[in-house]
Amino acid sequence: MFMDDMGWGDLGIYGNPASETPNLDRLAEEGIKFTDMYTGSSICSPSRASLLSGRLPIRNGFYSDGQFARASYAPQVVLGENGYQNKIVGKWHLGHRERYLPLNHGFHEWFGAPNCHYKYDTTVQPNIPVYKNREMTGRYYQDYKIDHKTGLGNLTQLYTQEALEFIERKTKQNENFFLYWAPDATHTPLYASKEFRGKSKRGLYGDAIMEIDAGVGKIMALLKKLDIDKNTFVFFSSDNGAATYAFTNGGSNGPFLCGKQTTFEGGYRQPALARFPGKIPAGQITNQVSLLMDLLPTILDFADIKMPRNLTLDGQSIRNVMEGTSKVYDRGVFYYRGNALFKSRYGFYKAHFYTWNTPAEAIKIGYHYCPGQRIENVTTSQMTNYTDKPLLFHLGRDPGEKFPIDPTTEEYRIGLAPILKIVQQHKDKLIKAKPEFNLCDLAIQNWAPRGCEKINRCMKAPPSYVYKCFWPY
Amino acid sequence: MFMDDMGWGDLGIYGNPASETPNLDRLAEEGIKFTDMYTGSSICSPSRASLLSGRLPIRNGFYSDGQFARASYAPQVVLGENGYQNKIVGKWHLGHRERYLPLNHGFHEWFGAPNCHYKYDTTVQPNIPVYKNREMTGRYYQDYKIDHKTGLGNLTQLYTQEALEFIERKTKQNENFFLYWAPDATHTPLYASKEFRGKSKRGLYGDAIMEIDAGVGKIMALLKKLDIDKNTFVFFSSDNGAATYAFTNGGSNGPFLCGKQTTFEGGYRQPALARFPGKIPAGQITNQVSLLMDLLPTILDFADIKMPRNLTLDGQSIRNVMEGTSKVYDRGVFYYRGNALFKSRYGFYKAHFYTWNTPAEAIKIGYHYCPGQRIENVTTSQMTNYTDKPLLFHLGRDPGEKFPIDPTTEEYRIGLAPILKIVQQHKDKLIKAKPEFNLCDLAIQNWAPRGCEKINRCMKAPPSYVYKCFWPY
Repeated sequence: MFMDDMGWGDLGIYGNPASETPNLDRLAEEGIKFTDMYTGSSICSPSRASLLSGRLPIRNGFYSDGQFARASYAPQVVLGENGYQNKIVGKWHLGHRERYLPLNHGFHEWFGAPNCHYKYDTTVQPNIPVYKNREMTGRYYQDYKIDHKTGLGNLTQLYTQEALEFIERKTKQNENFFLYWAPDATHTPLYASKEFRGKSKRGLYGDAIMEIDAGVGKIMALLKKLDIDKNTFVFFSSDNGAATYAFTNGGSNGPFLCGKQTTFEGGYRQPALARFPGKIPAGQITNQVSLLMDLLPTILDFADIKMPRNLTLDGQSIRNVMEGTSKVYDRGVFYYRGNALFKSRYGFYKAHFYTWNTPAEAIKIGYHYCPGQRIENVTTSQMTNYTDKPLLFHLGRDPGEKFPIDPTTEEYRIGLAPILKIVQQHKDKLIKAKPEFNLCDLAIQNWAPRGCEKINRCMKAPPSYVYKCFWPY
Repeated sequence: MFMDDMGWGDLGIYGNPASETPNLDRLAEEGIKFTDMYTGSSICSPSRASLLSGRLPIRNGFYSDGQFARASYAPQVVLGENGYQNKIVGKWHLGHRERYLPLNHGFHEWFGAPNCHYKYDTTVQPNIPVYKNREMTGRYYQDYKIDHKTGLGNLTQLYTQEALEFIERKTKQNENFFLYWAPDATHTPLYASKEFRGKSKRGLYGDAIMEIDAGVGKIMALLKKLDIDKNTFVFFSSDNGAATYAFTNGGSNGPFLCGKQTTFEGGYRQPALARFPGKIPAGQITNQVSLLMDLLPTILDFADIKMPRNLTLDGQSIRNVMEGTSKVYDRGVFYYRGNALFKSRYGFYKAHFYTWNTPAEAIKIGYHYCPGQRIENVTTSQMTNYTDKPLLFHLGRDPGEKFPIDPTTEEYRIGLAPILKIVQQHKDKLIKAKPEFNLCDLAIQNWAPRGCEKINRCMKAPPSYVYKCFWPY
């Protein structure tokens, strides 16, 4: 279960004041809650690519929005080779063109969309299609409505039904399955169905979360009803921190600084829960520094499947952490923004080599990644280079990265030294991938996806015009 | 159990990233957790006076630090009249002089101190005494050490032992008892005993919390061992929001704005848990707006004791909320700073009539109530009057008070109207008390408390010199 722009502070179990996620809170109580889970990127596509590949964006070449070319060792691929049936329900966001779509990357079934549910001026760009396996079944806004005024949209219901149907069918067929459930109602433009609209204490964003939480409840209930919950590994997390730039339409990063798009904790630290009765003891809370990139090797470890050899992963199996048999150990986190290593954590210490809040282009159009938060020399409006004397924070005493440690102190020296060491090791071993898709071309958007002719949704693509992709937010 | 400067975000169950309060988290799971519990004041003494009196500081005359003259209807008084044996363990902070001390205000036993554990220059002001019932047993720093360098101090251990001894003794004597347990290790200067120093992930502040949490665990274990936990009402909260001015030596207010001393949510919203097996169903989370001033009538309600007549309380019994038999209802909150009504909440809406962050005098000496947070027109450095057009916030969508609602909108009008109405009703009915103790006099400090001669701790008081009290922080 992989959420969209849901922040660390959004669930009741992570201290959201509204406390409206009873099903997810129960998942935590029946399994393990991670306090220190990190994503591979604080924006959607690279985060999803790193989740599935177990590798940092800088290593897999996918560090801005683009197309997923390297899924060869994603969980669905390896599991598929071992007889699992794989389905993705929801947002893919790893490429528009047919050869990049999920069914060409190890999934057997798909219901969902290749990208965010933005509404486009269809004379310039077609609305995003929704696929059922290899063929589109319609387009957002035209066939799958999301009402900008009322916030009504039925997709979460559809995504929940698809998940339930798949689980039930595969169980009855007695087949092992892997479900990647990726609803996107918490990404702007937010939506919720009529049953949930106006029901939460948090407005539309809260409604969207409540509906997803209810979906989780239905999925868990079905697993129990089918009596497979004890041999089903369930994992829940989110792709990046809450979109603070969306103001009250964004989620909560709890006590952390800033959000999506940034390398502050608010952008990189994720809610994460895992449940696997019999293997993962219930009621655990771990402070182990963990990475979403650990999921690939961890899944394979639980499934007793060997990893393909000769593959450098940034993740590692954290099965023993989940099983509660490992003491908390120190481990590096590398926070990239694009291809630049902005920050690194080791132990409780986090060093900022670069700081950067909101780019000037984004501020101009009303964006702000840290609304209401301003820390001198830290939330800088320009990309600021501190590589000579990194800013150092203690994330235990100061999870909000508010109080840089005085660089003249012994603590600074002691805290920084191991970070500089792991960063050097990381750089020495790193084979940077060439970004393959930082160029955009409207002609390759979804003008005429397979199946469009059956439902009269084909559009004529414009002549190809390649330009450098630009995402100010 | 009433904490000192512990913030809403300090417990695991309230989303603290360190998650180091297993005993308090368990208390929540076995009882009810309040998301919207408010204090009567965001500084220590008035908050404690309002807790015990069930009345706002503006109504009981105690709205800055001072002496407690009106304890006639505090829980210990009414319970005492009904045969309960009452003990306070820890910080009193409602007066230094003998006639204001706990044993003259309904308590039968006391171990603790009349004030914060600051260290004074004893040529100018005596260090605060520690009392055992009516007589002092020593002074902070001289007899009860708190090491400023190492953060070592043994008081929480002593406070825990005193609580355990009292509970066991009263149970064996088959007497009803009321224990007011008020450890103060989380108020600066922080301290923890050797067993806990350096053990938490959060530095000294976290060590202090871990030790208090362990104390709670011991108390709960004793209640269970004595088999009285099923007829013992346990309540846990804190006097005011975390002291953000103490930077990394202060606690966490989670997603809320600013902290202690302010009328933002960070100053007024408290963690609060209640447990009473058989009466309070386990595992509840309530969003009911509640006040610490509700505790007096609620305790009496649970104890089946009638409130004394003719007393205007600001609190009301929330027994049915705790029992889960009440639907969440709208209710006013009045946020005072000194004698000025700064803000008011009704439903989800909170109106700011005045805003004020850190006074200039406090900034000069390095204080800041909202470090790292700055919201234009909201966290103003001067006291700013918005009574003509109050700033309005929706605490559901925006618990951090970051995004004022546009005053030209329908929502502004609809949200503000009921607040203006309840404020008018509040003002119409309010009989303001005259502050009796806003004047200070070093001569009335603890120069020669009762019993000082036995332990050679008497000091000669200086001539009386009365001045206006001054607390910049």
